[in-house]
Amino acid sequence: MDKEELFQFIAEQKTAFIGSVNEQGYPVIRAMLAPRKIDGNDIYFSTNTSSNKIKQFTANEKACVYFYKRGRFKYQGISIIGEMQICTDQPTKDMIWRFGDKLFYKQGVTDPDYCVLKFTCKKAEYYCDFKIETIEF
Amino acid sequence: MDKEELFQFIAEQKTAFIGSVNEQGYPVIRAMLAPRKIDGNDIYFSTNTSSNKIKQFTANEKACVYFYKRGRFKYQGISIIGEMQICTDQPTKDMIWRFGDKLFYKQGVTDPDYCVLKFTCKKAEYYCDFKIETIEF
Repeated sequence: MDKEELFQFIAEQKTAFIGSVNEQGYPVIRAMLAPRKIDGNDIYFSTNTSSNKIKQFTANEKACVYFYKRGRFKYQGISIIGEMQICTDQPTKDMIWRFGDKLFYKQGVTDPDYCVLKFTCKKAEYYCDFKIETIEF
Repeated sequence: MDKEELFQFIAEQKTAFIGSVNEQGYPVIRAMLAPRKIDGNDIYFSTNTSSNKIKQFTANEKACVYFYKRGRFKYQGISIIGEMQICTDQPTKDMIWRFGDKLFYKQGVTDPDYCVLKFTCKKAEYYCDFKIETIEF
């Protein structure tokens, strides 16, 4: 799998799983909505500024983003490690905003509880049929 | 959600997501088959002794186990942090073994590449409809 195929696989998934490291050093996993945008080696998500993961990424930017697809006969998973940056600047918030977000953020695109997570890929492992491939960025 | 309901939810899921912390301090997520057994606050998985996660849990026992269910109108997720122990003793391997495992471990239940992961729950967060509940063990 090359980088282009990897991002194609990601673009087809509806759910992302994000890992952070908490204050006590434990890994913490959560499901997220699919990424909003992929640009070069960066993957963008929208989220709540007030959430626990924002506290965790502020203290420790080390992150994992995971995608998987489980078919009847085939399981594929991509685990990517990298750095997570929290973007609260208006140009980035404008870029990622979608109309339907109004449902969650009453003040709209300038809502202080709306922010963007920007994940920069560093290294990926692709699992398929009990084999692992490594992809460096 | 109480502990009983939490373990009931887990027992209904076909996939588990496991988080470890790697040598460089990055969280790493992988999908796993559903747990083999739940006993008290312990959740058992079967896996390959030679896998990367075994190296990571040997160096750092801090772990996360995540389960989720995404319905049409409702999303539920459970993220549990705790300690992961690697069991290579024969009584535990015997307890967790299932007949079909022969497909993956040619030497059967004594195969040195077959081992058991025992996760002890410490604290869980249950996400449902944008609300979070905390469950302590």
